[in-house]
Amino acid sequence: MAERVEGFNFEQRHGKKRVRVARVWKTKEGKHYVVEWRVSISLLSDCVNSYLRDDNSDIVATDTMKNTVYAKAKECSEILSVENFAIELAKHFISFYRQVTTAVVNIVEKPWERIIMDGQPHMHGFKLGSERHTVEAIVKKSGALQLTSGVEGLSVLKTTKSGFEGFIRDKYTALPETRERMLATEVTGLWRYSYESLSSVPQKPLYFMERYDDVKRVLLETFFGPPNVGVYSPSVQSTLYQMARTTLNRFPDIDCVQLKMPNIHFLPVNISNTGGQIVKFNDDVYLPTDEPHGSIQATLSRFWSKM
Amino acid sequence: MAERVEGFNFEQRHGKKRVRVARVWKTKEGKHYVVEWRVSISLLSDCVNSYLRDDNSDIVATDTMKNTVYAKAKECSEILSVENFAIELAKHFISFYRQVTTAVVNIVEKPWERIIMDGQPHMHGFKLGSERHTVEAIVKKSGALQLTSGVEGLSVLKTTKSGFEGFIRDKYTALPETRERMLATEVTGLWRYSYESLSSVPQKPLYFMERYDDVKRVLLETFFGPPNVGVYSPSVQSTLYQMARTTLNRFPDIDCVQLKMPNIHFLPVNISNTGGQIVKFNDDVYLPTDEPHGSIQATLSRFWSKM
Amino acid sequence: MAERVEGFNFEQRHGKKRVRVARVWKTKEGKHYVVEWRVSISLLSDCVNSYLRDDNSDIVATDTMKNTVYAKAKECSEILSVENFAIELAKHFISFYRQVTTAVVNIVEKPWERIIMDGQPHMHGFKLGSERHTVEAIVKKSGALQLTSGVEGLSVLKTTKSGFEGFIRDKYTALPETRERMLATEVTGLWRYSYESLSSVPQKPLYFMERYDDVKRVLLETFFGPPNVGVYSPSVQSTLYQMARTTLNRFPDIDCVQLKMPNIHFLPVNISNTGGQIVKFNDDVYLPTDEPHGSIQATLSRFWSKM
Amino acid sequence: MAERVEGFNFEQRHGKKRVRVARVWKTKEGKHYVVEWRVSISLLSDCVNSYLRDDNSDIVATDTMKNTVYAKAKECSEILSVENFAIELAKHFISFYRQVTTAVVNIVEKPWERIIMDGQPHMHGFKLGSERHTVEAIVKKSGALQLTSGVEGLSVLKTTKSGFEGFIRDKYTALPETRERMLATEVTGLWRYSYESLSSVPQKPLYFMERYDDVKRVLLETFFGPPNVGVYSPSVQSTLYQMARTTLNRFPDIDCVQLKMPNIHFLPVNISNTGGQIVKFNDDVYLPTDEPHGSIQATLSRFWSKM
Repeated sequence: MAERVEGFNFEQRHGKKRVRVARVWKTKEGKHYVVEWRVSISLLSDCVNSYLRDDNSDIVATDTMKNTVYAKAKECSEILSVENFAIELAKHFISFYRQVTTAVVNIVEKPWERIIMDGQPHMHGFKLGSERHTVEAIVKKSGALQLTSGVEGLSVLKTTKSGFEGFIRDKYTALPETRERMLATEVTGLWRYSYESLSSVPQKPLYFMERYDDVKRVLLETFFGPPNVGVYSPSVQSTLYQMARTTLNRFPDIDCVQLKMPNIHFLPVNISNTGGQIVKFNDDVYLPTDEPHGSIQATLSRFWSKM
Repeated sequence: MAERVEGFNFEQRHGKKRVRVARVWKTKEGKHYVVEWRVSISLLSDCVNSYLRDDNSDIVATDTMKNTVYAKAKECSEILSVENFAIELAKHFISFYRQVTTAVVNIVEKPWERIIMDGQPHMHGFKLGSERHTVEAIVKKSGALQLTSGVEGLSVLKTTKSGFEGFIRDKYTALPETRERMLATEVTGLWRYSYESLSSVPQKPLYFMERYDDVKRVLLETFFGPPNVGVYSPSVQSTLYQMARTTLNRFPDIDCVQLKMPNIHFLPVNISNTGGQIVKFNDDVYLPTDEPHGSIQATLSRFWSKM
Repeated sequence: MAERVEGFNFEQRHGKKRVRVARVWKTKEGKHYVVEWRVSISLLSDCVNSYLRDDNSDIVATDTMKNTVYAKAKECSEILSVENFAIELAKHFISFYRQVTTAVVNIVEKPWERIIMDGQPHMHGFKLGSERHTVEAIVKKSGALQLTSGVEGLSVLKTTKSGFEGFIRDKYTALPETRERMLATEVTGLWRYSYESLSSVPQKPLYFMERYDDVKRVLLETFFGPPNVGVYSPSVQSTLYQMARTTLNRFPDIDCVQLKMPNIHFLPVNISNTGGQIVKFNDDVYLPTDEPHGSIQATLSRFWSKM
Repeated sequence: MAERVEGFNFEQRHGKKRVRVARVWKTKEGKHYVVEWRVSISLLSDCVNSYLRDDNSDIVATDTMKNTVYAKAKECSEILSVENFAIELAKHFISFYRQVTTAVVNIVEKPWERIIMDGQPHMHGFKLGSERHTVEAIVKKSGALQLTSGVEGLSVLKTTKSGFEGFIRDKYTALPETRERMLATEVTGLWRYSYESLSSVPQKPLYFMERYDDVKRVLLETFFGPPNVGVYSPSVQSTLYQMARTTLNRFPDIDCVQLKMPNIHFLPVNISNTGGQIVKFNDDVYLPTDEPHGSIQATLSRFWSKM
């Protein structure tokens, strides 16, 4: 996207971030559905004159982008996945404006979950859950698509079946080896779909919503192992790799998985004074910390793809 | 607690905040339980010499308070509610130190929830939920107790059965009346138990954990109404009052309920330009906002009590 | 404010929080002044029927409160202190609505500071600073006033002239005594003025703005001591007390000072492994932490007053 | 960095984030200097066996990385810029471990500023300022260097000399054109130096600290214009471009500048009801908002370079 201006390389984009919209759909029977989205739009467009020559005639005002979010949400007469909405929005910008060469739409969905009372789903009542569904749709003027879904804030912890041994020991190393520790992380996952053009996207309006639930389930099952025995984790690295590989193996229309899994440390508590030990650790009392934290991330992709 | 020093009134307290501790318990069958608590301690104590005369001999160091949290967590050989832990901690400080007249312990429990796989609870796997359980225990040297539990971050939304009509209209009023709107709030609730001394507290270690779940259920049921038809809310005020009253009526050992229920506005979206209406609201597209927000709070207590 | 309803004690208030407003004033010479305020309003009013009988006829809508903030800001044709604006707003609510018995207005001012270029103040350019000026005005129907100003986010650090010795040592104590440590805190200060009625408030529009600067200067000078030698702090408690006392002694129209001074620990770094010491502390390398932190707070007031 | 494993493309890195360290230096005359850094390290290394074969023997433990931060800070016997510390750290990792091919070090410096009393700098007293100095040093085993400094949280506002006209008008456009508005943004700036190897870095220990101040001054001067008259901004785009270009023109050892300048909107306040206008905007009363916000970003680089 770089162009040459005044002897320099120049790249630019502009857009609108944190546009919040909620959309309600109602069935004839009085059952309501609601989504709440935080939308960010970024346009790559031919508008260099606004930077160089005080000429805004090629600028899509960011206020106009905001209005468009609401107008497009209004047009969605049927419930649809956040992925489909992101694609619709991006498609609009590349087709409506000759100046726009690429539209990037990022959305975070707030996890409103239908409330269940005595086993019965409520017709119009919702409660906020925890982890969030995300999407990025990049659409080029040609109709080329890059569709990446994700989950953020997926915090998980297992109280055993984790260790870390055999790593490099040198003069800066103080960490003891262990076969028994807590393992906690806040997973940020991204997975890219193989649909590479607007025309190839599955038509089922909730297809990607189901995929999101399925991917999350695979990630959790791989992290935790079977409910009765679990699975041993020799390192965050190894567990992360298993999670990524299982996802790729399970879902043929996912080409690429990126996982960020900070190691959120639960430190063993040992406290002493001159009179002896105040607290002696026995796999029972831990100090949870946010900082510092290990950071482990990796991307696994089918050979022909990359994130 | 005020005392007179150098011709002034003087009140002081000191303590340690944000002490984080996790405690794991394991059954013989290999089932693990975990809690993660963020503990704050505040001591009212006779230590005015540290303020006035550079004499720290009556000061409990805040570092010592922190160590005590871990030592007491270690001593808890059986799982117990966050309320019981708060009471134990507070009791320690008033009984161990002659200088301490009152101990105030606040704890927020992180909502780690046992993971369920194919309907089967995992032996040692947990995932973070949303709303948080809180407690404040105030214990005086006499053994007098004030025990207040709470919930924070309980975000709820209903897409209908809410209105607001008949309020004061004056020259600053622009809000239209309505019988149909979204209602969203983030409930912060506090409820004080009637146990007013250390000796009167129920002995069952998980008594207050069950109460927490029960109170939350009552709050939610009153807010939403029955799953098939809901219940009409003529104002946040009215709904809040019903929630508080139902809680007091249902739980005889709760004396006092305080609810804070900000009105988190979902604004109807209407956008026009000179060419006409871009988006026309039809109970479908909303702009969710965090600021500004209405703030409604009230305290309802049995006649002899107050929060 | 408690009243008896349905056999219970009942207290309530409602209002609007996080109303953001900016106000610009311009001199004939083209010099601009700007303030940005985040306003919260809370009304104690006779509107129990809205809670109990679905009758909103005594409710001041929170949307109306929001509009009033802008209307009153508009009316301020001359620059004025945030204290004066808070008083004006509160006064409006108790006088305009018969139902309102007490109005509580809290404002936080964003620290926009005029930019200086080569020693010359800019006519209309501003940059965000750090600590924030706050105010709470409580006005009753009678005209009785409680005016409390404050500062928040005032983060200060001294690299020496601080110690902590002679505190209680017991079986939970591990902290060594020291006469040499870092001292860091984020001061939250509140000071109440002696003006107890609307009619007694000083008329000078920027009186309280100057007071704010003066109080801050006294707090800082007492905390740090003279620029060349500093002043020894034997405890946060002692330093806090000096700061409060100096403020009361210096400003006769301040009746009461409350200071919260968390002890934000900079831990000495010592790291060892079996091969010896990796890092040995020598008053040079520290680990700054946010949690846990000590919490020290106190209120000092003239004998007839209390916060 | 991708490698082929089990038929997939694989990329990975691991490190330690949010390592906090403070370093104090003292002159013989008793003048103290202090820095507080939040360090993040990320290593690209040959350790694929830890992911695939439960073999951690090529893993640098993230705990070891943390220890190294403190050990290296200790070794810095003279005050140095955050850039120089980042380079030192990165250099250590690529030279000490054969497995490490690239080290990425990111540091944010907390803005502790020496306090001035009556015009005299304090010997050991500091107060927190606002915007933050950042750095990223990427060092490869070959000694190749990429050094990028930055500023974040630089919030600026001008109350006039800003407009936005002549942009695209279509059926989604509602924004009026204007030659008079507030302009506010929070600048995040990054600039890459031309030093492309460890050996080419300037030896003066505070060279980059002075550069940081100089770049900030140029950014501010270009944004605001002269103190008496300012400079007209026809768009954020145009102002951003001027800021980037002036930086490149002024500093020959900077090859590339990236600026992110969200348009933080101060909306004109107009409020009406059926009785007429409650507030009519006259360039005086604004509603400041955080969301949504415009997002404008661009990168300008000398022709042979790119960020």
